[in-house]
Amino acid sequence: MLNIKIILRTLGLLLLVEGASMLIALLVALIYNGPDIAAFCWSALATGGVGALSFLLTRNAKNNIGKREGFIIVSLVWVVFSFFGALPYMLSNSIPSLTDAFFETMSGFTTTGSSILNDIEALPHGILFWRSLTQWLGGMGIIVLSLAILPFFGIGGMQLFMAEVPGPTPDKLSPKLRHTAMSLWGIYVLFTLLETILLKIGGMTFFDAINHSFTTMATGGYSTKQASVAHFTSPFIQYVIIVFMFLAGTNFTLSYFALQGKLSKVYKNEEFRAYFFFIAMFTAIIAVGLYLTTNMKGELAFRDALFQVVSIITTTGYATADYLVWHPFLTILIFALFFFGGSAGSTGGGIKIVRIVLLLKNSYYELRRLLHPNAIVPVRFNHRSVPEQIVTNILAFFMFYMMVFFMSVIVFSVIEPDFASSIGAVATCLGNIGPGLGNVGPVENFHHVHPFGKWFLSFLMLLGRLELFTVLVLFSPAFWKK
Amino acid sequence: MLNIKIILRTLGLLLLVEGASMLIALLVALIYNGPDIAAFCWSALATGGVGALSFLLTRNAKNNIGKREGFIIVSLVWVVFSFFGALPYMLSNSIPSLTDAFFETMSGFTTTGSSILNDIEALPHGILFWRSLTQWLGGMGIIVLSLAILPFFGIGGMQLFMAEVPGPTPDKLSPKLRHTAMSLWGIYVLFTLLETILLKIGGMTFFDAINHSFTTMATGGYSTKQASVAHFTSPFIQYVIIVFMFLAGTNFTLSYFALQGKLSKVYKNEEFRAYFFFIAMFTAIIAVGLYLTTNMKGELAFRDALFQVVSIITTTGYATADYLVWHPFLTILIFALFFFGGSAGSTGGGIKIVRIVLLLKNSYYELRRLLHPNAIVPVRFNHRSVPEQIVTNILAFFMFYMMVFFMSVIVFSVIEPDFASSIGAVATCLGNIGPGLGNVGPVENFHHVHPFGKWFLSFLMLLGRLELFTVLVLFSPAFWKK
Repeated sequence: MLNIKIILRTLGLLLLVEGASMLIALLVALIYNGPDIAAFCWSALATGGVGALSFLLTRNAKNNIGKREGFIIVSLVWVVFSFFGALPYMLSNSIPSLTDAFFETMSGFTTTGSSILNDIEALPHGILFWRSLTQWLGGMGIIVLSLAILPFFGIGGMQLFMAEVPGPTPDKLSPKLRHTAMSLWGIYVLFTLLETILLKIGGMTFFDAINHSFTTMATGGYSTKQASVAHFTSPFIQYVIIVFMFLAGTNFTLSYFALQGKLSKVYKNEEFRAYFFFIAMFTAIIAVGLYLTTNMKGELAFRDALFQVVSIITTTGYATADYLVWHPFLTILIFALFFFGGSAGSTGGGIKIVRIVLLLKNSYYELRRLLHPNAIVPVRFNHRSVPEQIVTNILAFFMFYMMVFFMSVIVFSVIEPDFASSIGAVATCLGNIGPGLGNVGPVENFHHVHPFGKWFLSFLMLLGRLELFTVLVLFSPAFWKK
Repeated sequence: MLNIKIILRTLGLLLLVEGASMLIALLVALIYNGPDIAAFCWSALATGGVGALSFLLTRNAKNNIGKREGFIIVSLVWVVFSFFGALPYMLSNSIPSLTDAFFETMSGFTTTGSSILNDIEALPHGILFWRSLTQWLGGMGIIVLSLAILPFFGIGGMQLFMAEVPGPTPDKLSPKLRHTAMSLWGIYVLFTLLETILLKIGGMTFFDAINHSFTTMATGGYSTKQASVAHFTSPFIQYVIIVFMFLAGTNFTLSYFALQGKLSKVYKNEEFRAYFFFIAMFTAIIAVGLYLTTNMKGELAFRDALFQVVSIITTTGYATADYLVWHPFLTILIFALFFFGGSAGSTGGGIKIVRIVLLLKNSYYELRRLLHPNAIVPVRFNHRSVPEQIVTNILAFFMFYMMVFFMSVIVFSVIEPDFASSIGAVATCLGNIGPGLGNVGPVENFHHVHPFGKWFLSFLMLLGRLELFTVLVLFSPAFWKK
């Protein structure tokens, strides 16, 4: 029997947190004395009220969260959060349509960053802040989920990465992982503050600085400017953002080690090396390509290449250039990065570097197995053998990812005649990136997309954010069988 | 030490076969007294001469073909065959350029069917016949390879399919598989004859009938008409071709069983059921789609849908309609079929139905494993458990396929600005299909493609035809290590 009461109780508790976070946005609205004050009051009241009700009415719930309850809570919370999180947009009339407001909020919480807004600068400060805050909360949420909660359910790259915590069992984990989670939140906050200060020094207003820090560290990509980071032409600002996007796409436990002075743990880490290598390689090729095919100067070609590569591979989605007007070869290189993603245990989305590396390694090993079929050659990662089961899981993940991608492109083409636009919209939402190709490119937005498409893409964002399995398992008959 | 002499000796022997087959085309040229008679004489002489020389000069070769020699021979023979097979085109001035002639021949032998010809009807009969013959030989060749030779090297869906022959060992196989191979050739010839007769009855000339039978049974798709099968408006002819494309994409051992009256072996076969189901499903959706979005009558909508679906899923590549002018949703459904392919042990290319089914099953099992991590649930196929190793191999194959696909699209975009055209050209050549998307669609051809693109696509045809591993292993350092 599914313990529905505990599901409602947990969701209620989390809604209280969401309601409280709306009060922070209310504070911003009050400071700027904007037209959005009332909207935040009502939203917080409604969200907190429903949360409190749901929490209090289920006091007699049995306190056992099983696997199935876990899957349902983890999936549902994003949907519920997005519905309530859409209230401020709708009540302030910033985004009157439910479809649009839900899309914008889901895109926020999942740190995707695809937007339907045509005139961002016209919005009140409170609303802009709420928009960035959804990403920052989502980014923090995913770290907690992927480091502390999902491994319980046998999901997430962290199983593999955190070899220090072999075979996590509830009793062993509670104290240790709670401590880890707290440390990682600390780093998340620290980096956000640091970036805010640096962006302020670079010439941003304090408001723009804090907003961009929020959405950088979440690898979200919402900007307070319609032109995204391209609005800020200062190379200093752009490099600062590059550095923090890079950090946000790095496993947070590695940053933790680095801050403790254990640098060798960082540069010996195989996922980090691959992450660094991919960025360097793509940047080099694209920078040279831009230098040869445009009349850009050296530094600008390098900066534009680096910014776009880091922005896409970390799934942030900021833009300082329109990669769609580049030579097609360079555009497709950027598109290839849609299928990489950040590191495990970072705020980045996508397939994730650890999986890419293991997939590549396993493929190469498969060739060797052809030549020496009787030799048992397990795939190695960070100097340890990777259990066969994890390799199979990652291969199945990749298969699912491609399957969902292809099938979604087919579904999306019902409402979108342009092939490249369909591919771009699906890939960017599934990978939690932000901009796509064709008519949803980096200088465009998702405003013109058919309502059906907006709901569908919102679903893809959720699928991608929870790394497919968590959501897909809900659709399997096995899940609902006794 | 690599036994180079035995490689040369085997290739020499095979070249003699190719030279002999040119004599058949010469016969056709003589019958029609065409301008291509001399071209075939010289080609046969050169091919046979080099073959004989290579065969005779290596008489002292040690008679052991090891794994590595096997891989090299299987890959090289298609390249060597394509170079010599291009001679008739060049010497008859039908296709003067080496690049174009090589592309057309490789496309023939690999049964891809992508063509660079702009005016097919203008070519002499001997040349047209040679073009179809390359496909027919290639189709026969791949059956022999996939049923009798590749399993020795641990490659090919047949390992899995032919559970009757568990763990093939050389001594056990020789008599049995030679017999099987002969039976399958028999069926191949029988079906070709049968189709020729039916097409003749349907109103084709004998010459057109035999050519189309050759290229149908090979799932090749070369036509003697520029407009492909669309030239023949007779529904009877189109339905006949549909039936034989379907048979050519079916595992030939199943046809063997069917002819022996063992029908239950056919309809109980899981790959066959899936193959049938996919065709029925895609046809139904597309037929309804065509009916709703165009003013086609019922039968025509059904026939156009069925023909295009069967043509693409079997990787034949004939066209009776231009799927690029359909509603984008229907076009993308057709494009999805680019990633299916025929059955194992058929002449069809692509990923293959057996792999698709196992990938889907394994993915679903992975979801169940999430819920019951301690239950050991092996994937089952045809009521047998599939060994873990085969599942891993198929997953790695899929990964390779996607990797080669993506990287090739990137490479191809250097010379092709249109994204859809790049994707279409790469997918169709890698899947040995024929027509693509954009400027290489079913009413277009590959004539305008940059020479670099033609050589690159030729390589992809070979990669796809040999199911990646055979060719890729040659590029792995492990292969060349002592």
